[in-house]
Amino acid sequence: MKSKLVDMIKKQKDNFPLDQSFYIDKEIYDIDLKNIFFNQWIFVGHESRIPKKGDYFLFNVGDESIIVIRGNNQKVNCFYNVCRHRGSHICLEKEGKKNKLICPYHSWVYDLEGNLVKARMMPENFNKDEWGLHKCNSKNFEGLIFINLSDKPDSFDDFISPTKDFIKLHGLKDAKIAYRKTYPTNGNWKLTLDNFHECYHCQTAHPEYCQIHTNDYIQAYGAGNNTGPESKEFSEKLRVWNKKTKEMGYLVGEYSEKKFTNFYRSAERTPFSDDRLSETKNGKPASKLMGKFNNYDGGYTTIGTSPFNSLLMSNDFATTFTFIPRGPMKTDVEIMWLVDKNATEGVDYNLDNLIWMWDRTTIADKKIIEDNQKGVLSKKYIPGPLSDMEIGLEKFKKWYLQSLMRSLI
Amino acid sequence: MKSKLVDMIKKQKDNFPLDQSFYIDKEIYDIDLKNIFFNQWIFVGHESRIPKKGDYFLFNVGDESIIVIRGNNQKVNCFYNVCRHRGSHICLEKEGKKNKLICPYHSWVYDLEGNLVKARMMPENFNKDEWGLHKCNSKNFEGLIFINLSDKPDSFDDFISPTKDFIKLHGLKDAKIAYRKTYPTNGNWKLTLDNFHECYHCQTAHPEYCQIHTNDYIQAYGAGNNTGPESKEFSEKLRVWNKKTKEMGYLVGEYSEKKFTNFYRSAERTPFSDDRLSETKNGKPASKLMGKFNNYDGGYTTIGTSPFNSLLMSNDFATTFTFIPRGPMKTDVEIMWLVDKNATEGVDYNLDNLIWMWDRTTIADKKIIEDNQKGVLSKKYIPGPLSDMEIGLEKFKKWYLQSLMRSLI
Amino acid sequence: MKSKLVDMIKKQKDNFPLDQSFYIDKEIYDIDLKNIFFNQWIFVGHESRIPKKGDYFLFNVGDESIIVIRGNNQKVNCFYNVCRHRGSHICLEKEGKKNKLICPYHSWVYDLEGNLVKARMMPENFNKDEWGLHKCNSKNFEGLIFINLSDKPDSFDDFISPTKDFIKLHGLKDAKIAYRKTYPTNGNWKLTLDNFHECYHCQTAHPEYCQIHTNDYIQAYGAGNNTGPESKEFSEKLRVWNKKTKEMGYLVGEYSEKKFTNFYRSAERTPFSDDRLSETKNGKPASKLMGKFNNYDGGYTTIGTSPFNSLLMSNDFATTFTFIPRGPMKTDVEIMWLVDKNATEGVDYNLDNLIWMWDRTTIADKKIIEDNQKGVLSKKYIPGPLSDMEIGLEKFKKWYLQSLMRSLI
Repeated sequence: MKSKLVDMIKKQKDNFPLDQSFYIDKEIYDIDLKNIFFNQWIFVGHESRIPKKGDYFLFNVGDESIIVIRGNNQKVNCFYNVCRHRGSHICLEKEGKKNKLICPYHSWVYDLEGNLVKARMMPENFNKDEWGLHKCNSKNFEGLIFINLSDKPDSFDDFISPTKDFIKLHGLKDAKIAYRKTYPTNGNWKLTLDNFHECYHCQTAHPEYCQIHTNDYIQAYGAGNNTGPESKEFSEKLRVWNKKTKEMGYLVGEYSEKKFTNFYRSAERTPFSDDRLSETKNGKPASKLMGKFNNYDGGYTTIGTSPFNSLLMSNDFATTFTFIPRGPMKTDVEIMWLVDKNATEGVDYNLDNLIWMWDRTTIADKKIIEDNQKGVLSKKYIPGPLSDMEIGLEKFKKWYLQSLMRSLI
Repeated sequence: MKSKLVDMIKKQKDNFPLDQSFYIDKEIYDIDLKNIFFNQWIFVGHESRIPKKGDYFLFNVGDESIIVIRGNNQKVNCFYNVCRHRGSHICLEKEGKKNKLICPYHSWVYDLEGNLVKARMMPENFNKDEWGLHKCNSKNFEGLIFINLSDKPDSFDDFISPTKDFIKLHGLKDAKIAYRKTYPTNGNWKLTLDNFHECYHCQTAHPEYCQIHTNDYIQAYGAGNNTGPESKEFSEKLRVWNKKTKEMGYLVGEYSEKKFTNFYRSAERTPFSDDRLSETKNGKPASKLMGKFNNYDGGYTTIGTSPFNSLLMSNDFATTFTFIPRGPMKTDVEIMWLVDKNATEGVDYNLDNLIWMWDRTTIADKKIIEDNQKGVLSKKYIPGPLSDMEIGLEKFKKWYLQSLMRSLI
Repeated sequence: MKSKLVDMIKKQKDNFPLDQSFYIDKEIYDIDLKNIFFNQWIFVGHESRIPKKGDYFLFNVGDESIIVIRGNNQKVNCFYNVCRHRGSHICLEKEGKKNKLICPYHSWVYDLEGNLVKARMMPENFNKDEWGLHKCNSKNFEGLIFINLSDKPDSFDDFISPTKDFIKLHGLKDAKIAYRKTYPTNGNWKLTLDNFHECYHCQTAHPEYCQIHTNDYIQAYGAGNNTGPESKEFSEKLRVWNKKTKEMGYLVGEYSEKKFTNFYRSAERTPFSDDRLSETKNGKPASKLMGKFNNYDGGYTTIGTSPFNSLLMSNDFATTFTFIPRGPMKTDVEIMWLVDKNATEGVDYNLDNLIWMWDRTTIADKKIIEDNQKGVLSKKYIPGPLSDMEIGLEKFKKWYLQSLMRSLI
């Protein structure tokens, strides 16, 4: 398989999408999951979901289940949900509260730091200290919980460095989850991300997105900075807005990767058009101002921390995306909408208003990705030429192929 | 796999059904679909289903979806349902009407001849002429739409030649579909066709069939001409009827393959017994006379254009069968009942009367095929000796094994 | 696969459960089914289920379906449910009554001894005597129907010898099935049996079991004799009870395998505590005395005839277990509750009372096995050290590994 796959990687053409196998094969999927997804820092939830000691939720992917639990001293701990005795799952509900982690099979007891504190009837030479829960690498950054299933994870500091200030600007450590929804999508994770990395389809498929964002923005920045042909009109808007916003004292600018590494990040701040203040139907605020903002700067912050996560933020709320591979032709898209922790539903924000655009847009994406997947199965699927607005897809594809290649050799 | 399969083919015994693997293996199924089904001319529908320009229906098999659409000048065109850009399905509903074929993903626009007429934002060197839809070979013969998924299809004229006159006799170009029904059957396609190629089971399983057809016919011709021991009684009936019918000016006679080719066709005209005029419960006409018939000749025309299609025709209606492999142990049997296009339901024909025999018979066949498949999975399934009434099955099996062998070497 | 598997077997550590592959791999599962399950004498039902000539039920496992039918002279016959002609299943309902076994496909007729007695239209050289149904090895012992799907089965007499007297004591030949229930469990068959072969989890998971059985018994004998650390308290109880019971004239004692063979059997008689007479909630009798018992001896008989069957018996009823592998991570646990054939429901016994303990306990086991299986799928499942109360599991594991090894070389 390996050498066959290396050959296949080499055969992929510039400015064309991937060949069929990459979108349908079980073997490639298994390699992807192990070598790529399990080797990335993944945002899995906001700490507001587990405010008190013992509060936990599970993050499940592939055959892995991770317990994300609030431990001592407000720390968030992450453990593999696997008893060290005979392997039973320890937490059985998707979320809940536990004072101790007690295996439901034979009552081995672990504390919230994962130490084994009790095991009945064990042989004399048994040493409890050797049988604590397997920790999963994790980091609570600005309230965002990231995990990494690799045994040799990248440095979190290196990972977060270029997007750090963009995130900090929005004060997510003082946020709460207003709404959370999962969109199960019958498409390979790369086909699902292809969709997310181009806005060529926006005009066809996303009337709501095109109502909020203007054509000049969509053309040049719709799938991230410089993912389409430059729009002179938008460049000028951006120049003016950068100047004004800098004067207000807020961060501006953009980031994209310059060379290939295991990281695939991007960020930029851009202006809304037409005096819009927030990513809502009518452009008016959706909730209370967050983070460093004292007043609306008319800007929009979009961040990709990895291919598997994006953060799209107005001054008053954030929309987070997590793409979770579920099978060769299955991906869950999980979205959370974050608002200020002191905002009250019905008073400070209205849920329908908050989720309107990305909920409708993601439902539409699910449909077009699924219809794309069906056609990709055909023997007559032959990758076609990419348009000038699919530069983001091409970048993502290149990163994927290089990452896969590196993991094979 | 190949050389193992060649050995297996060689081990199959005359006058016994196939070994287990041929009826259950996923690998053999995949080879069958690709090398055999995709290499045949398949009847998929009657043109009356798409009377007007832009009317279409989909024919789906394996991972392929074929758009069968009425184009310009009344022509029927067939395309792979795959956008040339990134592969999305273009038509999403099973049937409908389209003025243009517009991909729902990025709005690439094709005309009804499959030419790409519009694609936004493409690079300068992009040539639309190179990116038309992939055509699927097709032929509209007497209103019957045949497709062929091979890239090097057999000549349609050669294919249709021996059954041509039998079909033309019945005037199907002036027919309409009175009813269409699919019978999903949990059996390998060859196990399903084994059933169709012998009438040894008719006495046990098909009281309706045995009410319409007599024992002498069933014995000798029940699964096609000379598929059982000769019946002197029936031969005499046939001789008398041939003479009388020739005098009336209608076609008589029979066809069966004399040597092995990629074609597997048969046809014959035979008399009903007991003054029956049509294949109905009481033997009375089911609908208006069709084709060249000015009056009833008491005959029955049965045609196999390939293992995957049969046409069974009275003077006043036709029953068509399409056998569509769906998996190693799944086959769809699709039946259409055709009547004269000017016949009116409730006036000229009654649906219950029309479909009675083959609907009941096919429901019974589904059940016995499924119970056969269950037993064939056993380690104690060892092919048993065929009866004198299973000559049709034996012929089909030989053609299959030779076809498979030829496709491997 | 073979040599890889041999290596894996050798790597398994004493006093730890099996590695992941043994609990999840499809290939190992297939080998297990073929080499182990199909090579054992399996109890599949009590003859009271088919009292009259022609009464039958089906026992299905893997791709096999076995007809268990009452033949002539009260004999129980077992046949593969596969017609010798083209392999159809012959009996289609899970249970029923047949005077003859007639294939529903082409009406081949077999008598209740499996002889082919009628087949229409066969070639001249066809000899019916050669085409009787394939017999499945079977034995009716004390009303218990055992089958063996091997073509070279072990001697039944050797197999039953050490547990014979324990079974005979309970008069099961005069029993009837009071209740039968299947517990489909999403766990590998070995993971399911691991659970059954240790009572370390009883304190955590089985309040009903712990209400009936005392801690001293559970510790030392909860999963069979000497499967946990000796309890001085229980040993003394056992000594006293053995003496008393021998004086009453009833069998006492225990059996366990001393060396490795294809057999894996165990048996013991033990006292209930606290004057309990039967394995019921309140310790009072559940039904009429059975077998050789004229009065209650306060004892409990537990027998394993193979890993796939157990018989747990009070003086007045028996609970039988059959563990049927259904897939790499699926096992059916089938339980039957047997009472004296003359006992009347509502008068002599109450169903709720009879099944209370094992029904609740098996529902709980299903849950913990399924949660165990989920965790065993993790890459962080590494077998942990067994407790002093998991000696039974360790014994079973060793027998399994030796059996598997022997079947490979």
